[in-house]
Amino acid sequence: MLFFTQCFGAVLDLIHLRFQHYKAKRVFSAAGQLVCVVNPTHSLKYAPTRCAAAQASTEQGILPPCHHHEAVHDPQLVPCTCPLFSCPWEGHLEVVVSHLRQTHRINILQGAEIVFLATDMHLPAPTDWIIMHSCLGHQFLLVLRKQEKYEGHPQFFATMMLIGTPSQADNFTYRLELNRNQRRLKWEATPRSILECVDSVISDGDCLVLNTSLAQLFSDNGSLAIGIAITTSKVHSSEAEM
Amino acid sequence: MLFFTQCFGAVLDLIHLRFQHYKAKRVFSAAGQLVCVVNPTHSLKYAPTRCAAAQASTEQGILPPCHHHEAVHDPQLVPCTCPLFSCPWEGHLEVVVSHLRQTHRINILQGAEIVFLATDMHLPAPTDWIIMHSCLGHQFLLVLRKQEKYEGHPQFFATMMLIGTPSQADNFTYRLELNRNQRRLKWEATPRSILECVDSVISDGDCLVLNTSLAQLFSDNGSLAIGIAITTSKVHSSEAEM
Repeated sequence: MLFFTQCFGAVLDLIHLRFQHYKAKRVFSAAGQLVCVVNPTHSLKYAPTRCAAAQASTEQGILPPCHHHEAVHDPQLVPCTCPLFSCPWEGHLEVVVSHLRQTHRINILQGAEIVFLATDMHLPAPTDWIIMHSCLGHQFLLVLRKQEKYEGHPQFFATMMLIGTPSQADNFTYRLELNRNQRRLKWEATPRSILECVDSVISDGDCLVLNTSLAQLFSDNGSLAIGIAITTSKVHSSEAEM
Repeated sequence: MLFFTQCFGAVLDLIHLRFQHYKAKRVFSAAGQLVCVVNPTHSLKYAPTRCAAAQASTEQGILPPCHHHEAVHDPQLVPCTCPLFSCPWEGHLEVVVSHLRQTHRINILQGAEIVFLATDMHLPAPTDWIIMHSCLGHQFLLVLRKQEKYEGHPQFFATMMLIGTPSQADNFTYRLELNRNQRRLKWEATPRSILECVDSVISDGDCLVLNTSLAQLFSDNGSLAIGIAITTSKVHSSEAEM
């Protein structure tokens, strides 16, 4: 009996996922884009100052002086950069991806253009939606966070981090795109390195920022579809030439 | 002596304008775009609820029930929609442009693509930057407003209104683009009719919204360059077909 109940539950989950997938395809006109449904993780414990000095991290992958990793001396070791958890893990940059997949169960997707479909946008702050994205020979971490910078006024912050050094990150440009209800919002920037803390990127506001009313305009039945594209950063070269 | 002092002041102003113009051209790569320097107007008197019921305005240019125009009965008359002033003027839609130009000294620019260069972004809220834009046979009003929705946290709101009816506005799409420091932010939407109050558009957050830190990233020496483009709204037809 338990077996049949579990099977029924699994079928219901599949139907729900299929429905979310259909919704995202309807929102994004570019046919053939991979749609990934991302469920939220309600963060019970935040340590917003844990990487306050991360901006001083060097080009060589040296560990930024994080508060909970003061005993680390090996400059080749990187603390766990998953923004969801105060995770005590530390390791070399090359094994961060496998740690995030295995310990934190973060999915990884292939392809230059994907659609990130964040569900249950109504959940109270702080909440995170996270996925890894593999393309152009590198892995990227997309973080969407609902957070109250001003008490009682939650906002959504979306950014992309390269799982690599700042000098590697400078070679790419990422684009986040929202498109619904005859409105379109696009944010393009150079990804930050995962050696810089995602907390500081969000507290600086150097990312896509949405207030609640705008997030609702772009949402469909509580889910927000974000189109993601990553390119090499030659798109900005014309600006530099001016 | 006074004459020479005035001449010297005028020359200094011209040099300053030329410098602003050069900065905007450097920011925007599309050569040949018209750059318009827009100085701020510090609003001493706001009446944020003056058009609270404006969203109910009809497709036929009927006056929305504004608080300071309760005595108006002619449905063809439009109150002064300049968001800067609590202006008692009212008139037909066809003469709104000349009223805004003559009474409120708002400049009007020609061309499908222009650059709006708002100066002195550091001024305290509430402050407005306003210009009219003539293209595709219609006139549009661009409003950039610095306002404190949350006390102590000023934000910038930018929107475009058609000086026409809501059904005419549905035929267009406007795009606002910021591009600096290897970051790019684009907002595309259908312009709202000037019959709907700009106050309600901003309080709904249905416009381009920038927090102070993002505005600083896009600013150059206290000036914010916004690229503006207006097209007929066929760009959204693919979305409707999905």
